[in-house]
Amino acid sequence: MSQTRKDRQFRPVAVPDVDLDGFWGKWQDAVCNATAEILLDRCIEAGMLQAIDVDQPSPGIVIPILEWGGTTQMFWDSDLGKSIETIAYSLYRKPNAKLEARADAIIDLYEKLQDKDGYLNAWFQRVQPDRRWTNLRDHHELYCAGHLIEAAVAYFQATGKRKLLDIMRRYADHMIEVFGHGPGQIPGYCGHEEIELALVKLARVTGENKYLDLSKFFIDERGTEPHFFTEEAKRDERDPRDFIQKTYEYGQAHLPVREQKKVVGHAVRAMYLYSGMADIATEYEDDSLTEALGVLWDDLVTKQMYITGGIGPAASNEGFTDYYDLPNDTAYAETCASVGLVFWANRMLGRGPDRRYADIMEQALYNGALTGLAIDGRTFFYDNPLESTGKHHRWKWHHCPCCPPNIARLVTSIGSYMYAVADDEIAVHLYGESKLRAELSNRTKVTLNQVSKYPWDGEVSINIVLEKPASFALSLRIPEWAEGASQLRLNDQKLDIEAIAVDGYARIEREWQDGDRIHLDLPLVLRPQFANPKVRQDAGRVALMRGPLVYCVEETDNGGDLNAIVIPDVLPATTETVLEELGGAVAVDLPVLREDTAGWGSSLYRSTRAERKAGSARLVPYHLWDNRQAGAMLVWLQAEK
Amino acid sequence: MSQTRKDRQFRPVAVPDVDLDGFWGKWQDAVCNATAEILLDRCIEAGMLQAIDVDQPSPGIVIPILEWGGTTQMFWDSDLGKSIETIAYSLYRKPNAKLEARADAIIDLYEKLQDKDGYLNAWFQRVQPDRRWTNLRDHHELYCAGHLIEAAVAYFQATGKRKLLDIMRRYADHMIEVFGHGPGQIPGYCGHEEIELALVKLARVTGENKYLDLSKFFIDERGTEPHFFTEEAKRDERDPRDFIQKTYEYGQAHLPVREQKKVVGHAVRAMYLYSGMADIATEYEDDSLTEALGVLWDDLVTKQMYITGGIGPAASNEGFTDYYDLPNDTAYAETCASVGLVFWANRMLGRGPDRRYADIMEQALYNGALTGLAIDGRTFFYDNPLESTGKHHRWKWHHCPCCPPNIARLVTSIGSYMYAVADDEIAVHLYGESKLRAELSNRTKVTLNQVSKYPWDGEVSINIVLEKPASFALSLRIPEWAEGASQLRLNDQKLDIEAIAVDGYARIEREWQDGDRIHLDLPLVLRPQFANPKVRQDAGRVALMRGPLVYCVEETDNGGDLNAIVIPDVLPATTETVLEELGGAVAVDLPVLREDTAGWGSSLYRSTRAERKAGSARLVPYHLWDNRQAGAMLVWLQAEK
Repeated sequence: MSQTRKDRQFRPVAVPDVDLDGFWGKWQDAVCNATAEILLDRCIEAGMLQAIDVDQPSPGIVIPILEWGGTTQMFWDSDLGKSIETIAYSLYRKPNAKLEARADAIIDLYEKLQDKDGYLNAWFQRVQPDRRWTNLRDHHELYCAGHLIEAAVAYFQATGKRKLLDIMRRYADHMIEVFGHGPGQIPGYCGHEEIELALVKLARVTGENKYLDLSKFFIDERGTEPHFFTEEAKRDERDPRDFIQKTYEYGQAHLPVREQKKVVGHAVRAMYLYSGMADIATEYEDDSLTEALGVLWDDLVTKQMYITGGIGPAASNEGFTDYYDLPNDTAYAETCASVGLVFWANRMLGRGPDRRYADIMEQALYNGALTGLAIDGRTFFYDNPLESTGKHHRWKWHHCPCCPPNIARLVTSIGSYMYAVADDEIAVHLYGESKLRAELSNRTKVTLNQVSKYPWDGEVSINIVLEKPASFALSLRIPEWAEGASQLRLNDQKLDIEAIAVDGYARIEREWQDGDRIHLDLPLVLRPQFANPKVRQDAGRVALMRGPLVYCVEETDNGGDLNAIVIPDVLPATTETVLEELGGAVAVDLPVLREDTAGWGSSLYRSTRAERKAGSARLVPYHLWDNRQAGAMLVWLQAEK
Repeated sequence: MSQTRKDRQFRPVAVPDVDLDGFWGKWQDAVCNATAEILLDRCIEAGMLQAIDVDQPSPGIVIPILEWGGTTQMFWDSDLGKSIETIAYSLYRKPNAKLEARADAIIDLYEKLQDKDGYLNAWFQRVQPDRRWTNLRDHHELYCAGHLIEAAVAYFQATGKRKLLDIMRRYADHMIEVFGHGPGQIPGYCGHEEIELALVKLARVTGENKYLDLSKFFIDERGTEPHFFTEEAKRDERDPRDFIQKTYEYGQAHLPVREQKKVVGHAVRAMYLYSGMADIATEYEDDSLTEALGVLWDDLVTKQMYITGGIGPAASNEGFTDYYDLPNDTAYAETCASVGLVFWANRMLGRGPDRRYADIMEQALYNGALTGLAIDGRTFFYDNPLESTGKHHRWKWHHCPCCPPNIARLVTSIGSYMYAVADDEIAVHLYGESKLRAELSNRTKVTLNQVSKYPWDGEVSINIVLEKPASFALSLRIPEWAEGASQLRLNDQKLDIEAIAVDGYARIEREWQDGDRIHLDLPLVLRPQFANPKVRQDAGRVALMRGPLVYCVEETDNGGDLNAIVIPDVLPATTETVLEELGGAVAVDLPVLREDTAGWGSSLYRSTRAERKAGSARLVPYHLWDNRQAGAMLVWLQAEK
């Protein structure tokens, strides 16, 4: 089989269906032990509890209205939502009565805040009640609802408690009344996408297709003419041209979504939209959406993505610029955007395993997204340059605190990205020590015990636990970087990967027995990566990867003048060292050339190049940089020639 | 002689003492024919005439007060001053009765505006009269006076008209009363240096040492404790810490000037200060100032200067950042800052010829400064990146229009930078078709006829015209890049340059006869330049120079993907072509390698480097870029290894 079968519908497994250990277990522990509580503390310090507590006076405008006509205070609900979502996942891994009680209390406040008609938004109920549904373009109203819906689904799945889920169902039911083409209805959608993917989650957990329909409505309406944002502005007596972002590309509303060919605008918005589109494509088996998404996917990954899976190079629009414009030292590459890319990639797997998407999901996850969180779970990167002179460090918090809960909820829910289940097939998208409990459509219960030190080691064992023999397909991703060099065995019998490969997955369809064992060996060797010569910032440079991990050099290991390190044309033999202070990460040492900065002399320019002397360099995973002594960092290193 | 003699006092020749032709003649024609009038038109369009016309109502605040507590409108006087200065020089080259009448009319308005006590400032007389002398730190009050003084000196020298000179003498006399340590006097100085060098010009043209003394006072006071800016703020009931630039380094007022070791802060301010310091060092033979300037000079040119002579990489402070931080695509490198570097370098020659300064003067002049002006004199660069993706173009005007008149006045006064005269010595600092009329201290009149197509051709002939034989020294700069490869002949007799070299100048001391002929041949071949490996942005890259000119590649000659051009390790033979559309500029063609962007395929990253194919590239002088079809540009090219 060489064609992707598009007739399947893979849905992510619920977070509680996967137990993590090993690499991801440690990260989840960091969130459980630190981040989850920190998120809540910081939200409360910012005044977010007062904002939703009807027994306290409204806080009013705490964060001033800015040039774009809004304030980050308008989306405090989203910060609380993502924090509750993180707490939910963390509670499953590590019960914490105190934390759960705090989350319950917040949910109680939301319950009291909710209007009789179901409406729920801290800003528009408590600060600007007369502005409800007047400026969907700028004010993040449905975006906030989306994050609260995601929180509700997660909290229900983790704790079994329905209160927030019921609140958000009532709100979603209210939206169904508010939005549409009927009399008095609003034919619109949110400037910051998010509600679309959230409604799909709500539909899946409740079994209610009406939420899918509303999601599809938002997607189908986007960018159509007469343009909703223009009409809305006129109704609201605003000049539609008075839009600080200048173009509807900012929110991917410049064209109907099926006609969009280029990834543009605000990166997080784009990722959330495409995620929702991919979900709807899966649920409705909508080939026109799938096709549009394929074009957008290629546009992103072949012209606009950092090697880290970071996206959106510019701070000015928090988003995309020109093709092949990937500055390293000023890279915006917001943590949330890489998290969003993981969301999108994961949902592109809804119609069947395909490493075209899963490889990028892994790349963005391990590099652009994970670097957003310190190893102790206590500090956060917002923007993620690939080069630093030593002044870029993780924040305790950020004036726009979207990234900390975003990476935290991704880390704690990572199990649902590792595995996906269709009627008669289980896909293993990501490797790592974990246990999956799945149920196929014929009610067969399957447990997969994955034993692996991945990504530090390339050996993966999967033991299948069955109550009775069962026929289904198991699809195992063979990353493109492992192609031709991987080994796959089933019960110690070697399998011919190429013969059973479908879209980059080794697909084993058989009647499985309890105790069947799969062994996959992925080659984790340092490999050079070169950028398309159209990427001017990477010209003459090489990046080094090992498995899914981008590596970098840090000043703490290598001294200063990192740009004077020159990687030999033929990559020399390397030495690997396990760094306990970085959670058992594998560092790679290799001989390099180093330009002689000390012997150059005092002049700034001269007619002969610097001498190159033999030296060595230590590489560490990019996602772990700035976790030891602060200093300079560099991903793209000078290539010998 | 191997030591610099510091007992001489070289002063620049007056602008009317040099006639230009050839390279600089064309540039001066562009200013005479276009720029001079454009400057005045734009100033008037901005409302600057109304601002000084007491018969019209005050314009009030036309440009809003910004975060730093001021507005660019506060220094409208400086824009008018620099424009009048440019007009003055242009009138000498090309009489223009209409333009002269317009300048006269402005001078008449200033005459009517001037207070009885001599004070003169459009903003503080007409918009904020109660704020006079209350905030020297931020409000550019003495800076404006300085530019009007420079205009007055130039206008007097060019036209013989004394009115503006007399106005500014009265104002300077008023300043002598206002500033000092006496009772009721202000012990201060301006946040934006300029008055210092202007007062030296005023002293030299009037012969009045009191203006030198005031200049020296401003220089000596700067950065002393108790700090004037702090005391001033308190007196004015402002919080001294409420300073948007955060540090007095911004205006080089963090330390007494003789204790400053590092070039910091706003680049133009720094250059103007050091220029004034160098003038005072020359006039007072002040070795402590000369020594401090030598340290600052080395700091700038060995750690903080673009190869173009551009300085001040950052937009945020319009100035300096960290050592070796020289980003190419985001380089601020304001035109005014390179113009200021020419000013400073020129004044460092006041105590004797030394190519340590003159070479950099030439480099900054021909590259970082001159690029600020379009070849037709009609548009202007403010910031000067060394790499452009095609979106950087010259402006018709700028919200802070300091650069257009600055480069225009430099171009039209360039003769006074080419030659300098001491009692018994004439120095030729710059080459180019020109005629100097000089007078030595013993009243000997000397005319030098310099015949040369420099910088396009390296041959320079100088014919000496004398009424009678005369003994004096003639010092001819041998640029460092020409060392060992230059030929020098006197009346067809070859001279041993090394034997007569003093600080990089061939010093010919003899009794000269009318008709003596000097012939200097400088080797103009393309030469590679590498940056100190501590400059991370230039790692693995090479720039190409020919004589004083930095060359670049432009998209119009080379197609796109300029970063895919790779300069061979051994520079191949080149071909030179004269481009008439660029005023006879010499373009250089050479074989290069080009990374195969077309054959790369669609992927963004891959494990093998791009193929390198044989190709060719055309280089053009950096100062002429963006004068033909708009497009990308690059100075630092990939080096083969």
